Amino acid sequence: MTERTRVRRLPELAHDDRSTLDALLDAALVAHVAIADGSGPVVLPMACARDGDRLLVHGSTGSRLMRALTAGSPSCTTITLLDGAVYARSAFASSMRYRSAVVFGRYSLAEDQLQALEVLTERLLPGRWSELRRPTDKELAATAVLAVPLLEWSVKVSDGWPDDDPADLDAPVWAGVVPCHTTWGPALDAPDLAPGRPPSTAVLDRITLDQTWRT
Amino acid sequence: MTERTRVRRLPELAHDDRSTLDALLDAALVAHVAIADGSGPVVLPMACARDGDRLLVHGSTGSRLMRALTAGSPSCTTITLLDGAVYARSAFASSMRYRSAVVFGRYSLAEDQLQALEVLTERLLPGRWSELRRPTDKELAATAVLAVPLLEWSVKVSDGWPDDDPADLDAPVWAGVVPCHTTWGPALDAPDLAPGRPPSTAVLDRITLDQTWRT
Repeated sequence: MTERTRVRRLPELAHDDRSTLDALLDAALVAHVAIADGSGPVVLPMACARDGDRLLVHGSTGSRLMRALTAGSPSCTTITLLDGAVYARSAFASSMRYRSAVVFGRYSLAEDQLQALEVLTERLLPGRWSELRRPTDKELAATAVLAVPLLEWSVKVSDGWPDDDPADLDAPVWAGVVPCHTTWGPALDAPDLAPGRPPSTAVLDRITLDQTWRT
Repeated sequence: MTERTRVRRLPELAHDDRSTLDALLDAALVAHVAIADGSGPVVLPMACARDGDRLLVHGSTGSRLMRALTAGSPSCTTITLLDGAVYARSAFASSMRYRSAVVFGRYSLAEDQLQALEVLTERLLPGRWSELRRPTDKELAATAVLAVPLLEWSVKVSDGWPDDDPADLDAPVWAGVVPCHTTWGPALDAPDLAPGRPPSTAVLDRITLDQTWRT
């Protein structure tokens, strides 16, 4: 832990185990990546995937953010998942359930672009890589996968219940949590899809992937 | 539009109308707020709500980020909603459906803290404000609602279909979009909930709020 990864607000929510970090990164598809230039900070969303001890992000080689990251600009990458709404007996004690990770570091071009692209594609579209042709050299040149090591990071997890002032416990109001979930589906055919091309098992599997709370 | 809000990558996805910005902000609950200090950028998630021509965020008056924002530090706030996965016939053409907004500016303390807190609470917990007691002075002093004007911003919307290379259209693979959605529910009672306190209509309404795709 470094000074800037010490969680100061609600430190009881901090987790310092890699398994909590990994579980969050493996559940997220989007990271918010920040750099700073002469006129201040800039933060943009990027598709992301964890690959062992590094976090991969992907973008066009022509973008300003990608150029700054590739050049080794100091960065901060934050990944957040909203897990629910916490209905307490006061506005002050009301909150959200969430998980968030902050990763500091400098990105660099992933050495193995093709393998990194496979990891990212499989994360965003599980099972898809083997269904598709290999990228061409021209395609590989137009985009890049960057990697930041998972060395300087913090994780915060808010997964509790309303923590009300004892004086509020008799308030004539419901209290509890309404969880939220990401659900996928249905599979919508592309307008130019040729006949006889049904969704693969991998695509259909996704449609129920995140609906376990319904069972 | 300023130089830094001009969308350079895929400018055909840029929208410059306030109604698209407002619809995105009104559908999101979390913003990623970035500042920069001497050691580089820092970006953290914050609960957010649009209030007319300003964006509100909320946090503890003791946090580093809140202190920097309150002091008028240049900031960049990005709001992203993931709307689906785009299955193209190549990894290169595959992508995600998403909406994202970037707002540059300096935050300041919202003048009307109580009213701003009501807007934020109602955004996060629709219909809840009137069910709860008023915040105490002590509670109001412990947190703050900050506001940034919606003046310098950009919005990008990716809501299309696979845009494949014509040579790939005969690939023997499904192509299309799998949308994703946020669903809420069920309402889970707090462990310390007294008997005879059922969820209100406002709480129950939320549980089906975002499941319209199922109808």
